[in-house]
Amino acid sequence: MTPERLHLYDTTLRDGQQTQGVQFSTAEKRQIAIALDQLGIDYIEGGWPGANRTDSDFFAHAPQTRARMTAFGMTKRVGRSAENDDVLAAVLNAGTGTVCLVGKSHEFHVTTALGVTLAENLDAIRASIAHVTAQGREALFDAEHFFDGYRANPGYALDCLHTALAQGARWVVLCDTNGGTLPAEVGRITAEVIDAGIPGDRLGIHCHDDTGNAVACSLAAIDAGARQVQGTLNGLGERCGNANLTTLIPTLLLKQPYASRFTTGVTHEALAGLLRLSRSLDDILNRVPQRAAPYVGASAFAHKAGLHASAILKDPSTYEHIPPALVGNERIIPMSNQAGQSNLRARLAAAGIAVAPGDPRLGRILEVIKDREDQGYAYDGAQASFELLARRELDLCPTFFEVKRYRVTVERRKNKYNRMISLSEAVVVVKIGDQKMLSVSESMDAAGTDRGPVNALAKALAKDLGPWQAVIDDMRLVDFKVRITQGGTEAVTRVIIDSEDRQGRRWSTVGVSPNIVDASFEALLDAINWKLIRDVGQPGTVGKAAE
Amino acid sequence: MTPERLHLYDTTLRDGQQTQGVQFSTAEKRQIAIALDQLGIDYIEGGWPGANRTDSDFFAHAPQTRARMTAFGMTKRVGRSAENDDVLAAVLNAGTGTVCLVGKSHEFHVTTALGVTLAENLDAIRASIAHVTAQGREALFDAEHFFDGYRANPGYALDCLHTALAQGARWVVLCDTNGGTLPAEVGRITAEVIDAGIPGDRLGIHCHDDTGNAVACSLAAIDAGARQVQGTLNGLGERCGNANLTTLIPTLLLKQPYASRFTTGVTHEALAGLLRLSRSLDDILNRVPQRAAPYVGASAFAHKAGLHASAILKDPSTYEHIPPALVGNERIIPMSNQAGQSNLRARLAAAGIAVAPGDPRLGRILEVIKDREDQGYAYDGAQASFELLARRELDLCPTFFEVKRYRVTVERRKNKYNRMISLSEAVVVVKIGDQKMLSVSESMDAAGTDRGPVNALAKALAKDLGPWQAVIDDMRLVDFKVRITQGGTEAVTRVIIDSEDRQGRRWSTVGVSPNIVDASFEALLDAINWKLIRDVGQPGTVGKAAE
Repeated sequence: MTPERLHLYDTTLRDGQQTQGVQFSTAEKRQIAIALDQLGIDYIEGGWPGANRTDSDFFAHAPQTRARMTAFGMTKRVGRSAENDDVLAAVLNAGTGTVCLVGKSHEFHVTTALGVTLAENLDAIRASIAHVTAQGREALFDAEHFFDGYRANPGYALDCLHTALAQGARWVVLCDTNGGTLPAEVGRITAEVIDAGIPGDRLGIHCHDDTGNAVACSLAAIDAGARQVQGTLNGLGERCGNANLTTLIPTLLLKQPYASRFTTGVTHEALAGLLRLSRSLDDILNRVPQRAAPYVGASAFAHKAGLHASAILKDPSTYEHIPPALVGNERIIPMSNQAGQSNLRARLAAAGIAVAPGDPRLGRILEVIKDREDQGYAYDGAQASFELLARRELDLCPTFFEVKRYRVTVERRKNKYNRMISLSEAVVVVKIGDQKMLSVSESMDAAGTDRGPVNALAKALAKDLGPWQAVIDDMRLVDFKVRITQGGTEAVTRVIIDSEDRQGRRWSTVGVSPNIVDASFEALLDAINWKLIRDVGQPGTVGKAAE
Repeated sequence: MTPERLHLYDTTLRDGQQTQGVQFSTAEKRQIAIALDQLGIDYIEGGWPGANRTDSDFFAHAPQTRARMTAFGMTKRVGRSAENDDVLAAVLNAGTGTVCLVGKSHEFHVTTALGVTLAENLDAIRASIAHVTAQGREALFDAEHFFDGYRANPGYALDCLHTALAQGARWVVLCDTNGGTLPAEVGRITAEVIDAGIPGDRLGIHCHDDTGNAVACSLAAIDAGARQVQGTLNGLGERCGNANLTTLIPTLLLKQPYASRFTTGVTHEALAGLLRLSRSLDDILNRVPQRAAPYVGASAFAHKAGLHASAILKDPSTYEHIPPALVGNERIIPMSNQAGQSNLRARLAAAGIAVAPGDPRLGRILEVIKDREDQGYAYDGAQASFELLARRELDLCPTFFEVKRYRVTVERRKNKYNRMISLSEAVVVVKIGDQKMLSVSESMDAAGTDRGPVNALAKALAKDLGPWQAVIDDMRLVDFKVRITQGGTEAVTRVIIDSEDRQGRRWSTVGVSPNIVDASFEALLDAINWKLIRDVGQPGTVGKAAE
């Protein structure tokens, strides 16, 4: 059977911008459009020209793409001609080869929200689509509230689709605007629409995630015959978001029956960049990546259960539905008190430390981990601290330096302009061999803002580590997470620090104490020691071999 | 048609604990179990007794619930009898009325992961379930990898189910352990299982979200006839998580055809507490609530698109698939418009402050809130700080005292026994009227443990507030939450402090700064000022009337 072509339509730049808290700049829109084009999306809906300055600017400077750049708008208003509707004119003036117009297909919305007659609405669809196609543009009709409309009055809802097709619309798109339709019904109604004479290869689907089913509804429509699917990167969009293309695309390319039945514009090579694309969108929006996101989440291939981890060691396919590398992701065997010795050995092996099965030190390491987890430590996300803990038990942890003491001062007072300011200052005393070094630092950043006591402490600690200074100069603290948790009977603070270096490594360390500054300090020390082991190693040990 | 009973099985405390970074304490497990019971869940899977200390402790002190408390474990190992399997014994020793045992149903896993024969595995299922039911317990059999197993060898997979049922298992549960099966196939295979003689009312479904379809797969199995559905609160769970009960439950209760076809143990009254339950789990885990979560997300009923917002004002059903109050949620319409102002007036009224509609100060308060939210403040959970902010704009905020300056020192050094200790010390200078008072405190608790700089600062601040000292003596800091968030372009720390007093009041305040000590101090100041307004008031203002 020859695979059929399935068309991917991205609306991250339009519906995705309806996400609460999301407002792209023109430059960000360009950046995302280029990334979508590289991924192999067929249509990029860039925004609504005329609706706001950013969208208009974007179309004025839209990047050249292989993908069809699409301007979004709405059907002409009743009471004026398509030619004389200024809102429609602004959309067409963007000059895109493809234009998508949303219009009503639900009688209740026609009469209540618009306050016009059913015939007037059909005429608006007819005239608007005709106006687009008359200019030689490719036209799409987004049938708003189609499923609700079809339930209320199937004849009228279908009339809206037929009207758009008759005027040469390339696609009519069934939109579940409220996101309330469930997958089985999306499938049933899509099949009925095709039975009513709308060809599946001119039919699109546009779903929202209000019942957590946007992906499943999209698949149900494809199963029923629709051949264009709309969605957004990372599932951005109004309310609960649109169908998540970051989830749908790997399913369509990797899972059966889709992988055999369809081709898309996305190659397997591009698919391997999916995780990076997802993260770069989070970066643009300053959003924390969803750990549990299908395919691209940091936890998507994390095997915490001990039974799972031991089976994974025998054969990854036992607990993985796809090989993680296909979407640019990787397997994680986290440490936790759920884990057994096989889990532990796998994780040590990942750090370059080989320990024989049954080695009694494995049991000891697990005990230390359990004890420390009871105190509030968490090693799931702090691989580097886990490695250091194991190295200490295995006598593979060199002492590079010793911290004799530190002192941090946090002050809030009036400055000479009588304005309240805060300021932190840290002194750290370190001993390396026979040498004692005393470093001091304050907490101001380049802009003169107080970044707080942990910042001051980190800077003082990293200021003079004697012979190791050159090694740690390229490391940088990139994230800092704080959680109040339970350690024994009292609340303690757990700090997780993410660091990176110029060699592209990224590692996480953990510290726990009732004192937040001290917890941070512990995580900082681990971060530096891990880096030193990586770059300096220890003669005659696995330190260097760990690379 | 009489509605059929659908059974809800929660595994937040077992499979939910497989979430990367999640480790419940025994007290937290109790708290969640009680909340699940109040919601109306039928089965609460509490953990795996014997697998780790927390799970064993939980069962030793499990709360009395109407819901069936369920211990999880695995079928006996090959080569020993059910009676002599210590792992199985630990599960039964928990003494629960219901026991759920996971076992293999996929031939590849039997021969590869376990390394035993197909017959030996069937015997393990038979003997284990018989051992449970012989003790008069209710037994469930979780058929691991059922869908993959059925694709590979349907006869053997079905044999596993029949074997468990023949030994009196109340339920056999089809587990899509890898989360790789798509909804259409879950529906097809579930129907075939029922056709093969497994009654639907003894059939459960257990799905994972690896393709973003866990909810849809669960619905597909219910459509096909399964009458027990398993999942977790907020979709916690291994890798991408389990089927999200927080999403499934409102769909089953509110959406057709489910609302008419089924009854569950969850009442509509309990459903209205769903959002609160979801948030309290996030609180326990110190996770940021998912804004876009179906039903309970803060954005789930947020109407950002201008066209939508204006239609909503005419008739909410135009853009909402359910009324948000049914799940305890509320509609959000951008603050700038009329709806934002009436919202604000309602919130002020709740604090005892009456402001006339159209008062220009309402617009100003909304602007200040928006500015501060951009800086990283969050007023959703910090009602007391919100009230103080509004009072300042309304000139209803008396100045009880002024902080001139503070200084906190955090030290880590060796004590006289040559052991590393940490210690914090705070000095606060406060002016009340013409009087200046200087207080100092250190961070040691009664047990001699350093509780850190914020503790020292709080104690110093509350040590001598002159005439107000008696008023604040009965207040106590009960919770302290820290989140690193984005303020403008830089990461800042947001601290939320919960306080309570002996009159039974509980209030929350927020502070934001790049400096965690300073953010904490701001929240502390708000907490004290709110208490003083409540108990001292201000002559001639609403302060006293607010009671």
